[in-house]
Amino acid sequence: MTVNSSYHTNNKRLTNRIHTLSQIGKIQETGVRRLAHSPEDVEGMELVKSWMEDAGLEARIDHFGNLIGRWEGTDPQAPVLLLGSHIDSQPYGGRFDGPIGVLGALESVQTLMEDGMTPSHPVEVIAFADEEGARFNKGLFGSRGILGEVTEEELERTDENGISRREALLRMDCDPSQFSSSVYPPGSIRAYLEMHIEQGPVLEEKNEPIGIVTGISGPLWLTATLTGFAGHAGSVPMHLRKDALLGASEAVTALHAIVSEHSPAPTVGTVGNMTIFPNSRNIIPESVSFTIDLRDIDLDRRNACEKKLMEELQAICTRRGLELDLQEDTRSDPRYCADWIMDYMKEEASNMGAAGIPHLMSGPFHDALPISQVCDYGMIFVRSENGISHNPAEFSTDEDIAAGTELYYRTVKRMLQT
Amino acid sequence: MTVNSSYHTNNKRLTNRIHTLSQIGKIQETGVRRLAHSPEDVEGMELVKSWMEDAGLEARIDHFGNLIGRWEGTDPQAPVLLLGSHIDSQPYGGRFDGPIGVLGALESVQTLMEDGMTPSHPVEVIAFADEEGARFNKGLFGSRGILGEVTEEELERTDENGISRREALLRMDCDPSQFSSSVYPPGSIRAYLEMHIEQGPVLEEKNEPIGIVTGISGPLWLTATLTGFAGHAGSVPMHLRKDALLGASEAVTALHAIVSEHSPAPTVGTVGNMTIFPNSRNIIPESVSFTIDLRDIDLDRRNACEKKLMEELQAICTRRGLELDLQEDTRSDPRYCADWIMDYMKEEASNMGAAGIPHLMSGPFHDALPISQVCDYGMIFVRSENGISHNPAEFSTDEDIAAGTELYYRTVKRMLQT
Repeated sequence: MTVNSSYHTNNKRLTNRIHTLSQIGKIQETGVRRLAHSPEDVEGMELVKSWMEDAGLEARIDHFGNLIGRWEGTDPQAPVLLLGSHIDSQPYGGRFDGPIGVLGALESVQTLMEDGMTPSHPVEVIAFADEEGARFNKGLFGSRGILGEVTEEELERTDENGISRREALLRMDCDPSQFSSSVYPPGSIRAYLEMHIEQGPVLEEKNEPIGIVTGISGPLWLTATLTGFAGHAGSVPMHLRKDALLGASEAVTALHAIVSEHSPAPTVGTVGNMTIFPNSRNIIPESVSFTIDLRDIDLDRRNACEKKLMEELQAICTRRGLELDLQEDTRSDPRYCADWIMDYMKEEASNMGAAGIPHLMSGPFHDALPISQVCDYGMIFVRSENGISHNPAEFSTDEDIAAGTELYYRTVKRMLQT
Repeated sequence: MTVNSSYHTNNKRLTNRIHTLSQIGKIQETGVRRLAHSPEDVEGMELVKSWMEDAGLEARIDHFGNLIGRWEGTDPQAPVLLLGSHIDSQPYGGRFDGPIGVLGALESVQTLMEDGMTPSHPVEVIAFADEEGARFNKGLFGSRGILGEVTEEELERTDENGISRREALLRMDCDPSQFSSSVYPPGSIRAYLEMHIEQGPVLEEKNEPIGIVTGISGPLWLTATLTGFAGHAGSVPMHLRKDALLGASEAVTALHAIVSEHSPAPTVGTVGNMTIFPNSRNIIPESVSFTIDLRDIDLDRRNACEKKLMEELQAICTRRGLELDLQEDTRSDPRYCADWIMDYMKEEASNMGAAGIPHLMSGPFHDALPISQVCDYGMIFVRSENGISHNPAEFSTDEDIAAGTELYYRTVKRMLQT
């Protein structure tokens, strides 16, 4: 895809803002550490709030710690068009994961305001609190919060310094007892739009700067434990072994084969974590626990993979004399992007000279995942260098971000003209 | 195999000694903790020394901490027939691993003395110091010591309390500066005989109490590290992955297949230890290190397995886009038992009514391994319940130990009559 450079959005302003924000909580040359509700996170929020106000938005931080900038509509009671992402980061994170979605949305709205547009629906640019979940080991906090999905238990979770979520919120003048005043009632959000770095290699492989997201894969997360019998690696003949690591290895290769059968479908299966006992060089492994991560935008296909994998695990256990214990950690359904929003994106990409813009699914979660439960949503991905994310080496070019922001601006404009 | 019960050896005496020794350093109901050169180990040595002296042997503890009881020959200058094993244990060990070899040797010699035999060659019963290597992470200390193979560096190794090997030896009145006086000169050992528990399930599976060892498998120990590229488990399509755990899993299954091809040969291959980085549920593993333990009594067959495995590792790396780093930790040759000693054992087993006595190799090391470098050797294995060892649950019956000791006695007698 080639895009022409006559963009409506002010990409110098956008680039400057991304750079300026990246100086808050900066680590190393290119990294960022802005943990949720931390002083760095609040400093970032205040900076973005000042830019929102410069643009003419009415900005506030709600009781979940979300930063919200509102462009009032001619019908203030109409459902709001919500635009955003997050600005908190991983502990050892990059500059682009989150911020380009917030600042791209602000740039789009600011440009529309400068265009002289007057929307009937209110528009809000939002930086959701604690998308990453790194500090309290549970994320999507702000986006679940405005839907009334945050529980009391979550407030007692503590960070590595023993500070609770409740305490962290109070320190930034948020008041958990006032949460209900920050919840968006049913029907009050018209649609949600988010731009994000891809965090994967698909666009880079296709040599495309941006892509239209078709949906967020629902992950199935399992933990399997295979138990056999330990024995001396030198003295137990092969046919008498109950080697848990052999079984686990067969499970890893089986998962890969089952999922790869559907290639080039976006079905993915991963064993990322494995624990071996006793993990000693000359002892046959007695038990091995490993995680299974299975994702697909097509739930039927994911279910078919799961069924095949379960059959394979049973066959492995029978063949190798192992016991299987299976624990289900998460089972989410895929959430599809709205066709009408994707249609706008496709048409506008074509208008930008990028008729062949790729469509791709999102494996990772985003704030769009919880929000998708209450309204239509759309997402734009921007190419990630080497697919790297959650790392200071995370990188997207100014040009790619500019292309994504121009498409974002055009899509918002179409949505407001509907 | 059925064995008749008209044994020459005094099995009540033997059983009592095994039981009495097991009370020193006792842990739980059935376990033992007698770490090398520890007060418990020395107490055990002193107890066995007193039994040696009761039997009429001249007993001493040498500068390596070996306990040696000598039955003088009519030709004191003739090479000595060495009989023994060890009495030190793993930190969480059992009662039989080692002691049955020392006490079975003593019982055999004592019976021969009671028979009125007068050997021309001297005979020595030896409890080698620190076979296990658990305390200073390097074993076969006494058996390497008498061959002059202990290095200065080893004396500076420390245990978990910071006590060096040198200090531990000095505390039991051994003097490292006098090591050379404890070394056996070349040609001074005629042959070596050891009885040991099998530490594996082969005899149990065959329903046989004892077996003749054909040799000790030389282990090949490698550490392989596969390096790919980390990525988000949700966002990297299967065909773009460089998943180090997938490669390692294929290596584990390949090793199993390559080795199992030779079944029922005693070829064994094991991956016992694996380390995964970053070992996170939703990140594709970037690098995986794993150990390879390959053993066979037939060196050509082991070499053929190694060659196939190397080809397979290369193919995996090519297929999965991984880099391989291979480290060789140990490469020992198999050490075969002497045919003439195995022939005596076979004939004597037949005389005991056990013509079909099984022959099997030893996967684990024993003191016989270093000693085999300087003289012919033979070994007898006694059945282990469930193949368990290095654990308080280690168990062999009095009857099985008695059968092994009777064969041991008969074999020693034949060797002395040569």
